[in-house]
Amino acid sequence: MSLIVQKYGGSSVADAESIKRVAKRIVETRKAGNDVVVAVSAMGDTTDELLDLAHAVTPIPAPRELDMLLSAGERISMALLAMAIKSLGHEARSFTGSQAGMITDARHGSARIVDVTPVRLREALDEGAIVIVAGFQGFNRDTKDITTLGRGGSDTTAVALAAALDADICEIYTDVDGIFTADPRVVPRAKKIDRITSEEMLELAANGAKVLYIRAVEYARRHGVTLHVRSSFNNNEGTIVYNPTTESENVVEEPLIAGVATDLGEAKITVVGVPDIPGKAAQIFNLVAKTGANIDMIVQNVSAAATGLTDISFTLPKTDGQTVLTALRADQSEVGFLGLQYDDQIGKLALVGAGMRTNAGVSARLFTALFEAGINIEMISTSEIRISVVTRADTINDALRVVHTAFGLDGDTEAVVHGGTGR
Amino acid sequence: MSLIVQKYGGSSVADAESIKRVAKRIVETRKAGNDVVVAVSAMGDTTDELLDLAHAVTPIPAPRELDMLLSAGERISMALLAMAIKSLGHEARSFTGSQAGMITDARHGSARIVDVTPVRLREALDEGAIVIVAGFQGFNRDTKDITTLGRGGSDTTAVALAAALDADICEIYTDVDGIFTADPRVVPRAKKIDRITSEEMLELAANGAKVLYIRAVEYARRHGVTLHVRSSFNNNEGTIVYNPTTESENVVEEPLIAGVATDLGEAKITVVGVPDIPGKAAQIFNLVAKTGANIDMIVQNVSAAATGLTDISFTLPKTDGQTVLTALRADQSEVGFLGLQYDDQIGKLALVGAGMRTNAGVSARLFTALFEAGINIEMISTSEIRISVVTRADTINDALRVVHTAFGLDGDTEAVVHGGTGR
Repeated sequence: MSLIVQKYGGSSVADAESIKRVAKRIVETRKAGNDVVVAVSAMGDTTDELLDLAHAVTPIPAPRELDMLLSAGERISMALLAMAIKSLGHEARSFTGSQAGMITDARHGSARIVDVTPVRLREALDEGAIVIVAGFQGFNRDTKDITTLGRGGSDTTAVALAAALDADICEIYTDVDGIFTADPRVVPRAKKIDRITSEEMLELAANGAKVLYIRAVEYARRHGVTLHVRSSFNNNEGTIVYNPTTESENVVEEPLIAGVATDLGEAKITVVGVPDIPGKAAQIFNLVAKTGANIDMIVQNVSAAATGLTDISFTLPKTDGQTVLTALRADQSEVGFLGLQYDDQIGKLALVGAGMRTNAGVSARLFTALFEAGINIEMISTSEIRISVVTRADTINDALRVVHTAFGLDGDTEAVVHGGTGR
Repeated sequence: MSLIVQKYGGSSVADAESIKRVAKRIVETRKAGNDVVVAVSAMGDTTDELLDLAHAVTPIPAPRELDMLLSAGERISMALLAMAIKSLGHEARSFTGSQAGMITDARHGSARIVDVTPVRLREALDEGAIVIVAGFQGFNRDTKDITTLGRGGSDTTAVALAAALDADICEIYTDVDGIFTADPRVVPRAKKIDRITSEEMLELAANGAKVLYIRAVEYARRHGVTLHVRSSFNNNEGTIVYNPTTESENVVEEPLIAGVATDLGEAKITVVGVPDIPGKAAQIFNLVAKTGANIDMIVQNVSAAATGLTDISFTLPKTDGQTVLTALRADQSEVGFLGLQYDDQIGKLALVGAGMRTNAGVSARLFTALFEAGINIEMISTSEIRISVVTRADTINDALRVVHTAFGLDGDTEAVVHGGTGR
């Protein structure tokens, strides 16, 4: 008997009908002879509605109470899902994050999992029950308080349960068919990827692919959990995200490029006229780090010899833009730069593939394709298995299409888009 | 420093504005130098909405999962209330039923409190925090599952906390000014009662007065908790519900009649032609007891000598009517009665007063008043401090007014009705 962990997102359980549909799918998995553990998100827009309520009460909700509030969302969806399964004649039991043994640190709103002690889940499984667990939430042992895991929390819950229960696979159900070589809404000939390494998936997720959260992929990679990303609206085979070191995979046959991701959520800050002396970059990025902002790409231009000044540009989520600008302005005289530029009309494109490691021509082919399409490259950043470029935001979709074609990723048929954003 | 327990019902926390208003009131109580523990219900119609969701998923929701679902309601209101208090600059902490140590039996949907272990509440109070507790919910030690207390559960939570923490008073906030001598919507000259014994309150609650739930009054009486019923919409003094044995009250000066309650929620079943031999009544009421229905009044007519048959009538909540009829019909031949009559057009009026014990003329005055108003009495039942009569449903409001006047309860001015049903 296999143990399968399944995760259903908010769009898969948005209303009573959806919950009944998901219940049937879970029962089918059970009938096929598997033990089943399900991590479920709050229904549809519940979390946003609860956040709106909190902000109607106070502009800055207390973090402990906000977590208590938000955790009500999964409590509703998990109880309804368990009821729906029971009404189909199968035993089911729902568990909150704390009942499931999801132990976290005390960082309210973005808690990290420190331990998983699924004693009650094992008992329920041993008694033949289907187990439903609230995604997104945990419990801190010291404060005895409820915590939430932040963005992508339910994916992380599912992966952590799969690791702790030594599940055979962790199925992430969503409203798209799997991971694609590019966003099918922009590139109609994007192909569904059958198998992708967790390393490649990590780069795609970090560079704007929305289907899986980077944190869940990291957790899966670290704990050797195999993911299966698939649609809850059909029975198509989705995408397997695997860890080659644990599967003695024949890495030689990996395709050159796994996929291309784009991201319009970032902005660029340029610190103009920084004295070109040692320690200035460190000073600037220490200031930025204190704001808690996540810096992505960093580019420093060659110093102009005549002035002894240089420019430093970096990208970061637009949501962090104002905070970082304020922090930098506050210490402008101390750091000694001339000014700041803020540009939120940028787009980022990332080409990801483990095969890139052994192939020198990838950058050349990428830059050529963009040049021939008349698209200007503003920043470049690379890792072993990724090349990212920044362009104007309004050219990013054209860039995606030409790059997708240039690397031979176009499929023979157009992908079927089920709508939604991939969450 | 006094310890005050306050309970706010769903209508007092129906939206963000109401929650902010309640938060201010709680902070005022704190500023006056009191420790404060608050039991709060789910916002407005939340519980009904969650029930609707459950029934959209399955016609008969699993009780364990239904409790898990419903308990989300108070989780939302208590977190929002704690946030609102914190935003006013006072420390506040919310606790679920299980965190608050509200231990119950395992009867999902109507759990009884078996123990209260408010360790975390005491800690929070010692640290100077205002404590917010989810009403209506508890936790079973053996199954480790969440339970709910059923109708009036939040009142019971408040009273149980007051008893366990040895609070000085338990304030029940509602949308009316207190307990009245009769329903002010029917009897405009009804007077607010300043003080009433828990015994009298118990009879009024059991006979249709809606402001307090009978279960909470019972708990308060058993544990010597003094209640203060008052409006959350003004600062008027409400009604004190006290336990005379614990306050060495001068019972002699009690008024003859505390108040008059009416109830249109009952129906009457008559078992016609029951053989007048020993054991038949026991047989009938054993059948009824198995359905779990709550029987109220029972009347057995004198047997007709010629036939050796008698009729037995009893009243019960309309909601239990069909179940009981079905159960009786199933065993008709075994019991040997001739037939069943069902009447849901009855009204019940109950006159309650501890002073009645020592005054013989109460029944006579009651029956005379009804006779002079042309109102026919169909059933009569009495306790030491109560007389109840059943009349036609459409005469019950007239009956209430004439009885209120006959016992000198009419006030000089008309009561201000704030609307709502007293919940």
